[in-house]
Amino acid sequence: MKKLKIGIVGLGRLGKVHAANIAYKISNAELTAACSIVPAELEYAKAELGVADVYADYKEMLAKADIDAVVIVTTSSEHCWQIEAALDAGKHVFSEKPLGVDVAQCKQAEAAVERHPDRTFMLGFMRRYDASYAYAKKKIDAGEIGTPYLVKATGIDPEAAVQGAIRFAKTSGGIFLDMAIHDIDLMRWFLGSEATEVYAMGATFKHPEFKEAGDDETGVAVYKFENGAMGITHVGRTAPHGYHVETEIVGTEGTIRISAVPEKNLARLYNANGVCTECVQGFPERFADAYLAEMEEFVRCALEGRQPGVSVYDGTKSTLIGYATTEAWKTGKAVKIG
Amino acid sequence: MKKLKIGIVGLGRLGKVHAANIAYKISNAELTAACSIVPAELEYAKAELGVADVYADYKEMLAKADIDAVVIVTTSSEHCWQIEAALDAGKHVFSEKPLGVDVAQCKQAEAAVERHPDRTFMLGFMRRYDASYAYAKKKIDAGEIGTPYLVKATGIDPEAAVQGAIRFAKTSGGIFLDMAIHDIDLMRWFLGSEATEVYAMGATFKHPEFKEAGDDETGVAVYKFENGAMGITHVGRTAPHGYHVETEIVGTEGTIRISAVPEKNLARLYNANGVCTECVQGFPERFADAYLAEMEEFVRCALEGRQPGVSVYDGTKSTLIGYATTEAWKTGKAVKIG
Amino acid sequence: MKKLKIGIVGLGRLGKVHAANIAYKISNAELTAACSIVPAELEYAKAELGVADVYADYKEMLAKADIDAVVIVTTSSEHCWQIEAALDAGKHVFSEKPLGVDVAQCKQAEAAVERHPDRTFMLGFMRRYDASYAYAKKKIDAGEIGTPYLVKATGIDPEAAVQGAIRFAKTSGGIFLDMAIHDIDLMRWFLGSEATEVYAMGATFKHPEFKEAGDDETGVAVYKFENGAMGITHVGRTAPHGYHVETEIVGTEGTIRISAVPEKNLARLYNANGVCTECVQGFPERFADAYLAEMEEFVRCALEGRQPGVSVYDGTKSTLIGYATTEAWKTGKAVKIG
Amino acid sequence: MKKLKIGIVGLGRLGKVHAANIAYKISNAELTAACSIVPAELEYAKAELGVADVYADYKEMLAKADIDAVVIVTTSSEHCWQIEAALDAGKHVFSEKPLGVDVAQCKQAEAAVERHPDRTFMLGFMRRYDASYAYAKKKIDAGEIGTPYLVKATGIDPEAAVQGAIRFAKTSGGIFLDMAIHDIDLMRWFLGSEATEVYAMGATFKHPEFKEAGDDETGVAVYKFENGAMGITHVGRTAPHGYHVETEIVGTEGTIRISAVPEKNLARLYNANGVCTECVQGFPERFADAYLAEMEEFVRCALEGRQPGVSVYDGTKSTLIGYATTEAWKTGKAVKIG
Repeated sequence: MKKLKIGIVGLGRLGKVHAANIAYKISNAELTAACSIVPAELEYAKAELGVADVYADYKEMLAKADIDAVVIVTTSSEHCWQIEAALDAGKHVFSEKPLGVDVAQCKQAEAAVERHPDRTFMLGFMRRYDASYAYAKKKIDAGEIGTPYLVKATGIDPEAAVQGAIRFAKTSGGIFLDMAIHDIDLMRWFLGSEATEVYAMGATFKHPEFKEAGDDETGVAVYKFENGAMGITHVGRTAPHGYHVETEIVGTEGTIRISAVPEKNLARLYNANGVCTECVQGFPERFADAYLAEMEEFVRCALEGRQPGVSVYDGTKSTLIGYATTEAWKTGKAVKIG
Repeated sequence: MKKLKIGIVGLGRLGKVHAANIAYKISNAELTAACSIVPAELEYAKAELGVADVYADYKEMLAKADIDAVVIVTTSSEHCWQIEAALDAGKHVFSEKPLGVDVAQCKQAEAAVERHPDRTFMLGFMRRYDASYAYAKKKIDAGEIGTPYLVKATGIDPEAAVQGAIRFAKTSGGIFLDMAIHDIDLMRWFLGSEATEVYAMGATFKHPEFKEAGDDETGVAVYKFENGAMGITHVGRTAPHGYHVETEIVGTEGTIRISAVPEKNLARLYNANGVCTECVQGFPERFADAYLAEMEEFVRCALEGRQPGVSVYDGTKSTLIGYATTEAWKTGKAVKIG
Repeated sequence: MKKLKIGIVGLGRLGKVHAANIAYKISNAELTAACSIVPAELEYAKAELGVADVYADYKEMLAKADIDAVVIVTTSSEHCWQIEAALDAGKHVFSEKPLGVDVAQCKQAEAAVERHPDRTFMLGFMRRYDASYAYAKKKIDAGEIGTPYLVKATGIDPEAAVQGAIRFAKTSGGIFLDMAIHDIDLMRWFLGSEATEVYAMGATFKHPEFKEAGDDETGVAVYKFENGAMGITHVGRTAPHGYHVETEIVGTEGTIRISAVPEKNLARLYNANGVCTECVQGFPERFADAYLAEMEEFVRCALEGRQPGVSVYDGTKSTLIGYATTEAWKTGKAVKIG
Repeated sequence: MKKLKIGIVGLGRLGKVHAANIAYKISNAELTAACSIVPAELEYAKAELGVADVYADYKEMLAKADIDAVVIVTTSSEHCWQIEAALDAGKHVFSEKPLGVDVAQCKQAEAAVERHPDRTFMLGFMRRYDASYAYAKKKIDAGEIGTPYLVKATGIDPEAAVQGAIRFAKTSGGIFLDMAIHDIDLMRWFLGSEATEVYAMGATFKHPEFKEAGDDETGVAVYKFENGAMGITHVGRTAPHGYHVETEIVGTEGTIRISAVPEKNLARLYNANGVCTECVQGFPERFADAYLAEMEEFVRCALEGRQPGVSVYDGTKSTLIGYATTEAWKTGKAVKIG
C-alpha cells in the first residue's frame, strides 16, 4: 500500500486531532515529522505520536524531513506563507481555516497554488465532510428541495469554554472572523452563489469582558447573494447546553435542517427534567468524524493527483466576506462585498 | 339551540372535569343536576358549577331531576347498576370506564342497554377521541400502515402521584385492572380483533408497599389475538418524567407511534440539562381535549338519537381481558380468554 | 351565570372561527348579533350560528343590537374607526390585528381607548394565548433562561394556500405588514424592549407573481432593540410541509424554542419516507386553542371589568415597526424606528 | 508501534467489514492472512485488501500464517471448533456472535478459553461498543436511572432485505435465534441479572413464506430475571422505514431510550411528507462505528494482555436463552431457563 508521508506543523488542540488521525486512523498515511515552536508539543509528538523527526523551525522541516505533504494547524496569521513555502518545496498542503487573516495574504496563497497545479491543496472546511452536511448537499444537488434560496446558520460555542474566548477577545479579530467562517463557507456552498452585501450587529449580555475588549459575545448578520438568495448567521460564545451548530437550507420545494438538537448520541433520558437529549460539548466531539473524513480525502487526493472540492478560492472568498461582516458590525451600516 | 340536560353522579377528580366541560364548554349541554354521597362535592356543585338541584341519593335524582341524560363518574363497582337504573328511567347514559368490576355486572349493563335501543349509551374510553389516537385510527382505516398486527402500549402514572396509588393498592383490583383497561381497549380497537390468550408478569423495585399489598408497581402483559395479531402492554406507577401514555401500532406497511415523548406543549428548553421537553403530569392534562371531545360526541349522539363508536360490549370485553390478565399475572401462567 | 352579549362584525375565514367559539364554546358568552357587508355571511350567521339579529350596517348594529361587546374581524383598514365607534357606543371591543393600516389610525384608536378606561379593549395577538407561547413567557418571567437577548422568529404560510396570497399581493401592503406583525409583537413581548432599527430584504424564487406585484414571497428582517437585544424574522408564503410558525428566544442561561416541528399531533409515521411528522396546515388549525383562549380571556375581562395583557399600544407599536420594516425592505437601507 | 498481525476467516458481508477495518482503519493492526472456502473471497482479499497470504483451509492458516490473532466471521456452526483450534494454536481470538449453535458447542469453547487465560478472547457483541449503548451503560452504572428493572428491546430488519431472510428461513434456526441474540445480550448487560423464564409468540402477516418455512416474520418474547426484573423483545424482518434497533432501559429514577428514531444522520427534511428523518438501512450502516470500536478494543486487549468486557460466558448464556425463547415460541408455553 502506497502511503502518504506527512509532516504536521502546529500541535495545539486541533493539531493533536489531525495528528492522531494521521498517525493512527488513516492506514495509507504516515506521520513522519512534526514541527512546533512550543517545545512541549514536540515532546508530545515523540511520546504520544511516535514521531522521531521533530523540528522547531518550519523551513528546516520542509528542507530535511522525509515528507510528501504538510498539514498546517498553526495560528491563522502564519497559514499563507507556510502554504506557499510548502508548495514551493514540492509538498502537498492541507491548511486549517481560515486561509489567511487578510485578502492580500490569501492572494499570495492563491498564486502559490496556481504555480503548483500538480500539488494537492486543501483547506480545512471540515463541515463539508460531515455526514449530515454531505447528505444535505447531495439532496440539494439532486434537486430534492428545489432551488435553495435561504440559508440560516447558527454556530455557538459552549458557555463551558467561554473563558478561553474571553482571553483571546482582543486578538481574535472579532466574533465574525473568529466564528462565522464555516457558516460563510456553507452559505456559499449550499447556495452556489456569492454574497454581495452584508448587514450585521452584535450583543453582549452575559460577559461584559467581550464588550470591554471591543468584541461581542453574540453576532447576527444577514447577507444578500448575487442570485437573489439570502443568508442569516447567528454566532455566539455562550450556549449553556453545549456546542450548537445548526444549519437550515430553505428551498422552493423543501427545507433541510441539520442538527436543531446537537445531540451527543442516540440516547434520550426520561427523568425529572422531562425528556432530554445531552448535547455535544465542542467542535472536536461534534466533528470528530468530519476531521477524519477530510484528512482521508486529502490523503486520497494527494496519492491520486487530484484536487478536493474545497479550493484556495473558497478560502479567499470566505475571508473577504468575514472582513465585510466585521466592517458592517463595527459601522452599523450595510456593506457591499467584493 | 336544543340543549341536553345532564345530571352528573360523582364529583371526584374526574367528575369535576366532566362537570366543568358540561357546564362551561359545551353550549348544547346544560348541567342541571348533580348527585354525590360526599356533601362537600354537592357544595362544590352549587358554588362552582352553579347547579342548584343536588342530590345525595342517585335514585332520587333519576326520579325528580329535570334531566335527559346521566353522566356516571362514581366508583367502578357502582357503574353497572347506575347505568341500568338510568336507562330504565329513560335517560341517556355516559359512564366512566371500566364498565363494571366483574363480567356478571357487565352483562347486566349489556341487557339494560339492549332493552333501550333508543337511548344513547357511551363508555368513557376517551383516548379514542384524542386527536392523535383518532388520527391514527383514521390512517389505519385508510390502509396507510397496511394490516396492523402488533400494538405496543405503555401507560405509566407519574411518580409524583404514587402515594395515592399506594393508598388504594389493596382495593384497586391490581395494576392491570386499574391501569391497563384503556390499553386493552386500544389494542382491540386498532387490531379489530379479540384477544384469546394472555401472559403477564409484574415487578416492584421502588415502592415495596405495592408488593406488601399484593400488587406490583409495574406490569407487563402480552396478548395473542384471534386473527394472529399480538399485543404488549407495559403499565406502571412511577414515571419520574410525568404521565407517560405511548402507543405504537405496527402494520405490514408502516408503523404509527403516538407520544413517545409525552410533551406538555411545543416548547423545547435548551439549557444545562441538554435539550429538554417538559412532560404532561397526569391524565387530566394529557387528555383534557379528549374528555371534552367525548362528551361533545355523547351530547350530539343523545340529541341526534345515535349511538357512539364505543359500545357497552367494548366495556364487557375489556373487563374480561383485564381479569384474564390479572389471573395470568397472579398464576404466572398463560391464560385463555373468553 | 352572567353572560356577555357579543355582536361580531366580519364573518370571513377568521370571523367564522371567532363566531363559532363565541356561539358554541364559551358558555359565559352569547353571540346575539352579526354584521357583514357580504349577504352570504349574514345568511351563514342565521343558518349556522343561530343569530337572528343581523345587520349590513355596522353603525346600525351598534345602535340597535342587544350587545355588550363587539368583536371586529373586518378588513384591516376598517379596524380603527370601528373600534372608536364601538367604544363611543359603550361597548367592550375585541379587534383582530393589525390595529390599523397606518400610525395615524392607530393613534385615533388609542385616543378612543383612553376615553373609555372602563371598557375592555383587546387586540387579537392570539399567539400570546397559545399554550406553548404562554408557557415560554412564564418560564422567561421566572428567569429560567436568564435575560433574553435574541428572538428568532419564523412564520411561513403553506404553499397550498399560496394562490390566495398571490391574488392579494398588490393590496396586502407587502409581506412584512401582512405576515410579520405577530412576530414583531412576540419579539417586543419576549424581549421587554422596543425596536429601534431594522434592516430587511426579500426574495422571490418560486412564484414570480409576487415580484411582479411589487412584493416578495419571502422576507428576512433583523432588528436592534433599545436594551441592546436583537431580533430576526423570516416570513414566507411557500412552506411545502404546512404552516410553519417557529420562535426561539435566546437568553443568557438558556434558550426556548417553540415548534421547530409544527406537528399536527403526537403521532409519528414510520414508513418508506422515514420517520415523519405530519404538520399543521394553517393558522386556524395551529392556533385553534389560542383563538378560543384569547376570546375566553376577553369575555372574562369584560365581565370582570379588567384589561387584558395586550393593549392598544401594542397595536400601534407593531404597526409602526411593520412600516419601518417595509421601508427598510423597499429601500435596502437600515431604518431607524420611532 | 507494535502491531497485531491478524488472520481473518470468512469474508462474507460482515467479514468484509471487519477485514476493511483491520486493513485500513486500525493502525496498530495488520491483516496478514485470510481464509475462506469461497475462492472469490480469497480473490477479494488479494485484490481489495492487499492480503497475499490466503488459505482455503483454516487449520493450514493457523499452522503456517504469520499471525498473532484470528478473527472468525464464518457460519455460526463453525465458530466453536474454530475458536478452540485457534486458541490451542496460541492465537488471540475474536469471534462473531453467536458463540455456537448449541450449548454443548459453547461449553467446548468455554473450556478452550479457560485453558488459555493468557490469550484474549472476544465475542462480537458490537452493540456494547456503540457510542449510544456505551453511554447508556455508563449512565446506568453511575446510578442515573436508579435500579434498572425493565428492558424493552426492538430489532427489525428492513423490508428491503427481506428476500434474503426468506431464503434462509428454513435453516436460520428461527427468528429468535437469528435476530434476538443481541437484544438478549443487552438485557443481561443492562439488568445485571440472568433470565429465568421466557414466554414467546410470533406472527406472519406480510410474507407467508416465513410461516411456510416453519418460521415467523415477527416475534415477541417476555422474560423474567433472577432479580425480579423483566425484559421484552420485539424482533422482525419487515420494517418499511429501515433498520430499526431500539432499546429502552427503565429504572426506578429514570429511563434511557436509544434510537426511537433510527436516524441516518442529523438532517431533517421538511417537505410534502411533513418533517421527516431518513433512517439507517442496515446493520453495517447503523453499527459501522461499533464494529470498528470493538475491533480496536480487541486489538488493544491482545496487545496489552487483557480480556474485554464481553466474555465467552456471555456467549453461552445468550445462546441458552435464545434456545429457550425458541422453545417457548414453538410450544406456546412459558419455559424455565437454565
